[in-house]
Amino acid sequence: MKIGPQAHHSSAISASNESTIVVRGRNLAQELIGRISFTDHFWLLLTGTMPTAAQRRILDATLVAIAEHGLVPSVQVGRMTLAAAPEALQGAVAAGILGCGSVVLGSSEAAGQFYAAIAAQIAASAAPTDAAKAVILEYRAARRPIPGYGHPQHKDLDPRARSLFAVAAEVGSAGTYIGIAQQVERLLPDLIGKPLVLNVSGAIPAALLDAGYPLGALKGVPILARTAGLIAHLLEEQLRPIGFVLSHAGSAAIRYDGESPPDFEPARE
Amino acid sequence: MKIGPQAHHSSAISASNESTIVVRGRNLAQELIGRISFTDHFWLLLTGTMPTAAQRRILDATLVAIAEHGLVPSVQVGRMTLAAAPEALQGAVAAGILGCGSVVLGSSEAAGQFYAAIAAQIAASAAPTDAAKAVILEYRAARRPIPGYGHPQHKDLDPRARSLFAVAAEVGSAGTYIGIAQQVERLLPDLIGKPLVLNVSGAIPAALLDAGYPLGALKGVPILARTAGLIAHLLEEQLRPIGFVLSHAGSAAIRYDGESPPDFEPARE
Amino acid sequence: MKIGPQAHHSSAISASNESTIVVRGRNLAQELIGRISFTDHFWLLLTGTMPTAAQRRILDATLVAIAEHGLVPSVQVGRMTLAAAPEALQGAVAAGILGCGSVVLGSSEAAGQFYAAIAAQIAASAAPTDAAKAVILEYRAARRPIPGYGHPQHKDLDPRARSLFAVAAEVGSAGTYIGIAQQVERLLPDLIGKPLVLNVSGAIPAALLDAGYPLGALKGVPILARTAGLIAHLLEEQLRPIGFVLSHAGSAAIRYDGESPPDFEPARE
Amino acid sequence: MKIGPQAHHSSAISASNESTIVVRGRNLAQELIGRISFTDHFWLLLTGTMPTAAQRRILDATLVAIAEHGLVPSVQVGRMTLAAAPEALQGAVAAGILGCGSVVLGSSEAAGQFYAAIAAQIAASAAPTDAAKAVILEYRAARRPIPGYGHPQHKDLDPRARSLFAVAAEVGSAGTYIGIAQQVERLLPDLIGKPLVLNVSGAIPAALLDAGYPLGALKGVPILARTAGLIAHLLEEQLRPIGFVLSHAGSAAIRYDGESPPDFEPARE
Repeated sequence: MKIGPQAHHSSAISASNESTIVVRGRNLAQELIGRISFTDHFWLLLTGTMPTAAQRRILDATLVAIAEHGLVPSVQVGRMTLAAAPEALQGAVAAGILGCGSVVLGSSEAAGQFYAAIAAQIAASAAPTDAAKAVILEYRAARRPIPGYGHPQHKDLDPRARSLFAVAAEVGSAGTYIGIAQQVERLLPDLIGKPLVLNVSGAIPAALLDAGYPLGALKGVPILARTAGLIAHLLEEQLRPIGFVLSHAGSAAIRYDGESPPDFEPARE
Repeated sequence: MKIGPQAHHSSAISASNESTIVVRGRNLAQELIGRISFTDHFWLLLTGTMPTAAQRRILDATLVAIAEHGLVPSVQVGRMTLAAAPEALQGAVAAGILGCGSVVLGSSEAAGQFYAAIAAQIAASAAPTDAAKAVILEYRAARRPIPGYGHPQHKDLDPRARSLFAVAAEVGSAGTYIGIAQQVERLLPDLIGKPLVLNVSGAIPAALLDAGYPLGALKGVPILARTAGLIAHLLEEQLRPIGFVLSHAGSAAIRYDGESPPDFEPARE
Repeated sequence: MKIGPQAHHSSAISASNESTIVVRGRNLAQELIGRISFTDHFWLLLTGTMPTAAQRRILDATLVAIAEHGLVPSVQVGRMTLAAAPEALQGAVAAGILGCGSVVLGSSEAAGQFYAAIAAQIAASAAPTDAAKAVILEYRAARRPIPGYGHPQHKDLDPRARSLFAVAAEVGSAGTYIGIAQQVERLLPDLIGKPLVLNVSGAIPAALLDAGYPLGALKGVPILARTAGLIAHLLEEQLRPIGFVLSHAGSAAIRYDGESPPDFEPARE
Repeated sequence: MKIGPQAHHSSAISASNESTIVVRGRNLAQELIGRISFTDHFWLLLTGTMPTAAQRRILDATLVAIAEHGLVPSVQVGRMTLAAAPEALQGAVAAGILGCGSVVLGSSEAAGQFYAAIAAQIAASAAPTDAAKAVILEYRAARRPIPGYGHPQHKDLDPRARSLFAVAAEVGSAGTYIGIAQQVERLLPDLIGKPLVLNVSGAIPAALLDAGYPLGALKGVPILARTAGLIAHLLEEQLRPIGFVLSHAGSAAIRYDGESPPDFEPARE
């Protein structure tokens, strides 16, 4: 197979020899272990630079906000998988991450791109309200959902969104993107005919982008955070299993409506 | 299907209603977001309690220590998977976690159980040296490898292990388990005929168990940490792809040695 | 990293050049496509030889027997994953395979190894009944379950097991292993105090091993077969989704029993 | 969570009671095991109907054609994953399926949709050449690749494509779609400025759609087929491992180009 012209032959993340491990240009054992938090390290791994105190606070807040929300489908997928293969924790983690799906994990990134499109118009001298209106209508015309607004359970207010913006105000990083996110929330009732409140997947990119976190790395935040929640559920599953209860309840909720041989009576769950 | 007597019908991790999300008994939006670090949250999710300052330092240090070590097989698996399905970041994360495998992800837990077996004998009044010797010889008799010692690259010293123990000394949490880990290192040359230095997968459980982290949750630490490193590599893969270079190099290293039809000449890579 | 002495640098499965693809020594386009069935090809891929007519019948029968059994946990895992990431069919297939778990996918292999242990004693001149008794008691002493017997739903008879043995009789391949499987079924009531009927995961290795299928390849049969059933469910999921109904039923079956902040009332599903 | 109006509560694939398992309306043990091939069963599972002899020949031929092509990236992903977690075959299968990626697994479906767009214009009375030209130019205008044409290794001829069409001719199922596929191949040199030969991912949907296989089920064929090849590689990996050789070759091909602490010299592989 020929390797295309776009292929690279190098990586800038880590190197090592017998006595030293280098991560993003730092000596891991001497400069990083014990000196920085895991959140700092995640920022460093992704961007190659160390976060400021404000950036660390914002990244911590977003990771905490999105890590856990109960028995969501991906957690059920993970717990059912662990029940089926108790010895393979990493298989259950992998299945749970797949079960998060693009819908959950992609929302923050999609909202970030939506805000970036509005920010680009503002940067090109559009008035903020006009810019927001224009991009909302563009999404509507293309029948794309407005990412970052509305939640099936938290209909009037997503409390995580409010807290994230309070943290941004506290550390002084609130700026253009949070402004855009709030502007969109105000415009939606008129433009789409119903109120849709800002949800956590809208607040995360707004807070992170204002803090200088790179747009291209947004998707990493919900994936890492959800992995933490998933691990907690899987360790609980090992101690008090609910995986089979979940699958039993699932199959009891669905009936067979295909053809049957004569005299066949499906089992009642 | 009958659900066995061991099945549970409850979970203690999270609950929510329209206005509030509860995680481990705390109001997520009011008590956690912006107030605790992601590392605190991980400890809380796993154990139900908040870490002390010393516990946070130790957990941060272990997560930082194990997150990244270059183009290890799991990273190659993740990058090759992303090259093949560029739109599915979570598929590449899942594949990379599977590629970490039990060997890498299980080492900390295995070493923790090994130390716990020695600690149990000490708690039952054995002298520390005798306890360590007895368990080492038991593992040898069962042809089990001694987990947490030896590294293919860091033969004389794993610098991450030394740093972790320095952090434990600094925060004042070093205790029984670190003592056991060092005792074992001193005994190995005599008992197995060659020196094997303590590696990061031995130092992690020793430091965590001394800090009061639960044995049953050890495996969660390398999984979460490696996920962070993996995400960094996948974001780099999106910017400057090496996935196809990796697979090209791999296939070039292997030749076909099965039968061939007459006149068939395998392609030279 | 040093590569151990056990490492190989060759593979005997497939090679290709610009005009020809060789699989197991055959020209794929000229000798295989259109000339052999997929089941023949699977046998060839795994063993390097072409099956006889009897071997093909047995392999077909076992693959058909184990492919599908309704909304088992792995199917729910796959369907919930596809609901969460509708664009990634392969992610849902991967999650579903993980959800099959070692318990389901490993049963045929475990039963095959159990029968092989009995066959080894018979080959070393033990009487068949004595050999079976000895190995059953050995498993009991080690607290290992007897693999291939008992089924939570098909308590009196697993109809798939009976059909597989009828096929083996019809093609003339029934032999030592089916004899052992039936002998074990007769001995179990006395030896473990209750009747446990032979299930499909016991009948599959007995039929395959008698037909000359290699013991080491047993696990491949349920994996390939379940993948077929899983794909059918995922295509149905695309047409009429039940993934969210499954997860809704699951979460409604579990209550939160952790602590709560004052005045918090969990949502009723 | 509210379940949307599109949600279903039933499935038509399988049901069972204590004595009987029904698959697609048939009694599995009495009507299917031993009476039909695995390929028949796959068609039945996916479509609810039994294939004709011609349909079975075509489905067999396509599954055989796409099952195996050497050490492709997905096979490397699977083998490296198994090397890292030797006890978890299903984890390695899952990783390998993820490693196939949308690019490989989606090609047949994409080509099927491309042909269906041309067929729809022909059905609406366009001349076949005009219809093909129109859809090709539409794809070009949208900067979409033409799916099913060109192969990095088989530049002049994909021998699998020719064989598949020979089978279709032999069983008498060749029709509109194969005609379209060939027409497109003739038009491409003029329309895109270079010859691109029909590849196996174009020939598969053309042959299957002519045989009456449903468009929506096309993606299932490469997934099932590649799973068979993957299992063969994983069983070979258990006998003679190359997983670590692959990852060693991969990491040796990539150099670190990030910053380094003073005096740090990366290890030579």
